[in-house]
Amino acid sequence: MAERALEALIDALRRLPGVGVKSAQRMAFHLLQHDRDGALRLATALGDAVHRMRHCQRCHTFTEAEVCSTCEDPRRDGRQLCVVETPADQAALERSGSYKGLYFVLMGRISPLDGVGAADIGAERLLERAGDGVVEEVILATGFTAEGEVTAHALSQALKARGLRVTRLARGVPAGSELEYVDLSTIAHAMGDRR
Amino acid sequence: MAERALEALIDALRRLPGVGVKSAQRMAFHLLQHDRDGALRLATALGDAVHRMRHCQRCHTFTEAEVCSTCEDPRRDGRQLCVVETPADQAALERSGSYKGLYFVLMGRISPLDGVGAADIGAERLLERAGDGVVEEVILATGFTAEGEVTAHALSQALKARGLRVTRLARGVPAGSELEYVDLSTIAHAMGDRR
Repeated sequence: MAERALEALIDALRRLPGVGVKSAQRMAFHLLQHDRDGALRLATALGDAVHRMRHCQRCHTFTEAEVCSTCEDPRRDGRQLCVVETPADQAALERSGSYKGLYFVLMGRISPLDGVGAADIGAERLLERAGDGVVEEVILATGFTAEGEVTAHALSQALKARGLRVTRLARGVPAGSELEYVDLSTIAHAMGDRR
Repeated sequence: MAERALEALIDALRRLPGVGVKSAQRMAFHLLQHDRDGALRLATALGDAVHRMRHCQRCHTFTEAEVCSTCEDPRRDGRQLCVVETPADQAALERSGSYKGLYFVLMGRISPLDGVGAADIGAERLLERAGDGVVEEVILATGFTAEGEVTAHALSQALKARGLRVTRLARGVPAGSELEYVDLSTIAHAMGDRR
């Protein structure tokens, strides 16, 4: 076979999340036909990221330093610690401009079906971090999915057992929604949590 | 910023076709968190493919050799030349087991809206290849999309002007379909081409 390098590329692209064999082929053909520069840039970026990125010793997000820039920021309020599933969730909270405390990034969520337990998302590390004597409130901002709720519940139990104040992001009707189009479970929660 | 390598990776992933900023983030986090081996393998595969893959001198598909394995195969019938848009289309024809001739891979299609003309898809190279004195029939197997049809039309004109016999894949009702669910234009074509 004189197409081994192409097949190896398609196989490697298939390992990306959400990429099947058709997308992988399309990506490989595109890169080879129209964007060889982009392919080489991606190769370099992959190597750099793998070799440079590690986890922040305080919040566990990805960083090139010992401690990430958010944890290092003296303007942040160390009394609040917001627990999120991923750096993307953290970025969404940052964009909202509604939070000035620190973060803890789980890099996952409890998922019994996939065999992911509390230990796999660093629950011990979170308990240690939250018990630094400065944190007063832990805000659980995991997703409002089945797995996010399970994660919030398990972490809440463990954190409360250490005497910490634990809160959860409010559930309710999203901004800009017409009630008619909001799902019933959301309306029921919004009604129950009305204020 | 202590996250520059991560941002460079997300930017590089966004250049892949069909990948937006959210997918690129998800891919980057997945690779760094769960599959650093996969990331390094992809980096190597990208470099290898870019440096090794070139175009077959006869059919223009991707190959590591001067001439690809299909064009080199002596069991192939050199009197038939099938014109396809991409190596993926060629692979689909091969899987069907219905064709034993040779191929010419355009690596694209005419698309006036994107400024892609006949010259960009190697029409000259096709005319040269089809005029080798062995080819008797050119089968146009470009897609049955607007752009695929425009491409087939333009190539058909040019090939016929050289005195070559030009055919097109049949249009009709797909195998396994119930007529009720087939679109009207397909039914109309199937009726017109009935046999």
